Amino acid sequence: MTDYKAPLRDIHFLLDDVFDAEAKWSVLPGFAGNLDIDTAGAILEEAGKLASSSLAPLNRSGDEEGARWRDGVVTTPTGFKEAYATYAEGGWVGLSGNPDFGGMGMPKMLAVHVEEMLYAANSSFTLYSVLSSGACLAIDTHASTELKATYLPRMYAGRWAGSMCLTEAHAGTDLGLIRTRAEPKADGSYAISGSKIFITGGEQDLTENIVHLVLAKLPDAPAGPKGISLFLVPKFLVSADGTLSERNALSCGSIEHKMGIKASATCVMNFDGATGWLVGEPNKGLAAMFTMMNYERLSIGIQGIGCAEASYQAAVAYARDRLQSRAPGGPVAKDKAADPIIHHPDVRRMLLTMKALNEGGRALATYVGAQLDIAKHGADAVTREAAQTRVALLTPVAKAFFTDTGLESCINGQQVFGGHGYIREWGQEQLVRDVRIAQIYEGTNGIQALDLLGRKVLADGGKALDEFLAEIRRYAEESGVEHRAALLDAVQKLEETSYWVRDQAGQDSRQVGAASVEYLHLFGYVTYAYLWSKMASVAKSRMDADPEFYSAKLSTAGFFFNRILPRIEGLAACVRGGADSLYELAEAQF
Amino acid sequence: MTDYKAPLRDIHFLLDDVFDAEAKWSVLPGFAGNLDIDTAGAILEEAGKLASSSLAPLNRSGDEEGARWRDGVVTTPTGFKEAYATYAEGGWVGLSGNPDFGGMGMPKMLAVHVEEMLYAANSSFTLYSVLSSGACLAIDTHASTELKATYLPRMYAGRWAGSMCLTEAHAGTDLGLIRTRAEPKADGSYAISGSKIFITGGEQDLTENIVHLVLAKLPDAPAGPKGISLFLVPKFLVSADGTLSERNALSCGSIEHKMGIKASATCVMNFDGATGWLVGEPNKGLAAMFTMMNYERLSIGIQGIGCAEASYQAAVAYARDRLQSRAPGGPVAKDKAADPIIHHPDVRRMLLTMKALNEGGRALATYVGAQLDIAKHGADAVTREAAQTRVALLTPVAKAFFTDTGLESCINGQQVFGGHGYIREWGQEQLVRDVRIAQIYEGTNGIQALDLLGRKVLADGGKALDEFLAEIRRYAEESGVEHRAALLDAVQKLEETSYWVRDQAGQDSRQVGAASVEYLHLFGYVTYAYLWSKMASVAKSRMDADPEFYSAKLSTAGFFFNRILPRIEGLAACVRGGADSLYELAEAQF
Repeated sequence: MTDYKAPLRDIHFLLDDVFDAEAKWSVLPGFAGNLDIDTAGAILEEAGKLASSSLAPLNRSGDEEGARWRDGVVTTPTGFKEAYATYAEGGWVGLSGNPDFGGMGMPKMLAVHVEEMLYAANSSFTLYSVLSSGACLAIDTHASTELKATYLPRMYAGRWAGSMCLTEAHAGTDLGLIRTRAEPKADGSYAISGSKIFITGGEQDLTENIVHLVLAKLPDAPAGPKGISLFLVPKFLVSADGTLSERNALSCGSIEHKMGIKASATCVMNFDGATGWLVGEPNKGLAAMFTMMNYERLSIGIQGIGCAEASYQAAVAYARDRLQSRAPGGPVAKDKAADPIIHHPDVRRMLLTMKALNEGGRALATYVGAQLDIAKHGADAVTREAAQTRVALLTPVAKAFFTDTGLESCINGQQVFGGHGYIREWGQEQLVRDVRIAQIYEGTNGIQALDLLGRKVLADGGKALDEFLAEIRRYAEESGVEHRAALLDAVQKLEETSYWVRDQAGQDSRQVGAASVEYLHLFGYVTYAYLWSKMASVAKSRMDADPEFYSAKLSTAGFFFNRILPRIEGLAACVRGGADSLYELAEAQF
Repeated sequence: MTDYKAPLRDIHFLLDDVFDAEAKWSVLPGFAGNLDIDTAGAILEEAGKLASSSLAPLNRSGDEEGARWRDGVVTTPTGFKEAYATYAEGGWVGLSGNPDFGGMGMPKMLAVHVEEMLYAANSSFTLYSVLSSGACLAIDTHASTELKATYLPRMYAGRWAGSMCLTEAHAGTDLGLIRTRAEPKADGSYAISGSKIFITGGEQDLTENIVHLVLAKLPDAPAGPKGISLFLVPKFLVSADGTLSERNALSCGSIEHKMGIKASATCVMNFDGATGWLVGEPNKGLAAMFTMMNYERLSIGIQGIGCAEASYQAAVAYARDRLQSRAPGGPVAKDKAADPIIHHPDVRRMLLTMKALNEGGRALATYVGAQLDIAKHGADAVTREAAQTRVALLTPVAKAFFTDTGLESCINGQQVFGGHGYIREWGQEQLVRDVRIAQIYEGTNGIQALDLLGRKVLADGGKALDEFLAEIRRYAEESGVEHRAALLDAVQKLEETSYWVRDQAGQDSRQVGAASVEYLHLFGYVTYAYLWSKMASVAKSRMDADPEFYSAKLSTAGFFFNRILPRIEGLAACVRGGADSLYELAEAQF
């Protein structure tokens, strides 16, 4: 198996050249004066080392060994405990956490790249940590000062982990149906009872304590999603001095046997009158949980990029090595019996497709990260709100498009290996199995697409979309814009398709769900076109500084516009196929 | 897990209504008078029973247990041996085998459906048998009468199995590089020495003997693919009376650990001066092997349909059962807390995409099967040759398009299940893992695409393509053709794209491989459009006879033309992106 190498050169290109991170940070109150690009570079380098030297070596052994459950106790694979200790000591759980409680307060624009490296090296391992970081965010945003002071420092330090308990056996997408109950107790705490499934890291042997964020219903709660509250329920109760006291009334009933991410424990969690504390307002738990969900959605999107990058690196190495047949233009390796397959056009097509999608995704993750930083630290409310709107628009795109194209890339990376791609020892098939979950959890990609089209594009009358497209068009008016005409055509196609769906949906509400998945893909390719144009323009202007790197960037942009962006022709045409033909069959006729 | 149900109603629609199988059989010398549609129906029904009652119950346990290797001995999972005995006793190995040696002589047009049912029920199991049937075909076509008389009856009876030994560690796609040697011996036999990898069923405990068809080089062989000969090399040597004598000098060195088809033993086979016999002419072994390879290619294509059909059936059952959220048009199951997800538009889109692709694929498999029967039994040479040309054109399409869309369908079928699709006990994830290999083995789908565009479309100046498109256009002139305009547009798009590639390829040989995969997909959708138009036209004309079935067919055709065929817009546009942007990056810049 190929060793994973952190893509630091490309990350620096995005931070330094494309998005001018230092300038952005210098005007944000949270970072001004605290962070320069060299510090950021040092953090990225450390994260890269951690990923490639501590986590990547445990990826395949973790898959083979898997997480194990016995009598309520979960054992993670050999080496995970030690690696988690290293990870925790480095302060990585609190990388973008609140400094008031021991977080490092680093920008999301930086953290997205750390996450990509971690996922690329070991998705199963990384899930334990991103769930903790996400739980911290929800606690920091919604919990009382007392809860924050008790829990956040220990969670940021990696001594305690977090989990996210939403799904029940009969209620996944439709959380309004949950049955877990919370009974108020005299001391202000609650007794939580119910059973949750698919709880990542619900039980493990990596940390001293696990802090569950649990959705449950108060006795007088209204029916449906407006009657859900959020509770903090620790595995071990915590004494006033912060030490652990008795075990709470909750347990892990079993773990799932899955297609992939086998080293990540996916738990059934039973709460039997467990003691918990309300986080945020009663009956407003779903909104509070969405603070964590949106964080996780971007993160899970990044899992798609990480797995695809690992697959790409291995595929390139194999394609350089593997000799098979002659290149169509005549022999390249004349002294050998055949040419390296990297010289065959279809192998190049697969590799370049991976490269263009991965780098496009990395650029969009950076863009969304930057907007998240503005939404949090921006100087005025108008700026913060505009950034938040942009984040809301692009989060479902990031989650679903990164992971749908992530699967495509991992399939391509496996295909480059031919038969060897199907064999476990080469690692490519594990990446396919591991990345597949990212299209499903944290809201299936179908749900992301409904969120994008229904809530983010149509619900505000197209305002958020218009503002985003206006930004692209303003950019396209600058001088020296590469692929300007193709970009503007693509933007127009997205706009026209959006209006078409809006007009249809006005008469038939089924049109939204009928169009949504292909619409999201169309949206994703157009967004990548924007970022690829930007990257190409920047690369061209800096060519002399590093011709090898910048010319590759320029050429990959050319490939994207020539060979990938035209997919939108088919997507737009399929969307216009409409909803009618989805509803002709009666249920029995399927 | 949902029980698999053989799609007999749909198969009868194809055989009876669309392709009028009985009329076709009545004029083919091999079948005339021997076979009517009732007999065919009885065979299909038996195959369906075998698939659903003997093979399907072993699919998941076989995946969990896997094939095991110890000291050269391979043990198949519990139940496989008994199921194979049942399978052999039914005469299924020889279903379309030569009656002169004990085969049943049934048409391929029938056998394709039997294969689909077997793959749907248990792909791993089915591989043991289709390799045997394919080996029989190669022996029947190319071996001496003596070899045929000795081997075929016992292979058709399922007592002995076959294997196909092509690949070596350094030579997969590029068989010209193989190193296995064949030294002539005084008695007319050969001593075979070398090591082969990825040999399906190279060793197993299902049959008394295994007959390996091995590619090797004679001492004086020219270099490259024109120096390859084919040898029959049995695991146990055979006495003059047909009984088994001593063990041949060959052994199974290990088996692979794979992503899926875990119950199928994928073997490293070592030949240490093993005794073998030449099959066909010296140095013409690759052509002889292609008799088997083309058979297997269609068969492996059908694996794609089989897995996708199994996934579809399970997904429909789950979508009818699972209650989650309300349908966009308002509550359907008013007495329940939520509606079955089959009423949600995106779930319908996924299910209909599976249905339209599966039924389109089944129709194309029937069409190719019918052409294979004409190529073999046709009354005159001109008819036979025309059919053979059509088979040659469509075989790479069937192999690659059935399996690429097969993966898409299995991914959709898994997605319908949400989180449960990722859990092993539901079976959907196994179908994804099992179907994935079909895009890789028997020539990767990239190789199929090169074969289609380079050898089948361009090499004869477009003649075979023109004849096929002329057939579609003749059909479109008939009265009562459904979706005529869309079909003719699609044919024209395929034709124009073909000419465009031809013109480009004349100046730059890299254009073929640059266009080939997307070209094959374009070709596949246009071919499905032809068959969906046919199916719709027939369904409309027979509506009164079975409104529930025929209206579903008509509606699914509508969905295909509205929501799937428009994908060709994107594919054609991507093809026209050309080869240049594939070759801008130097090897080091990836």
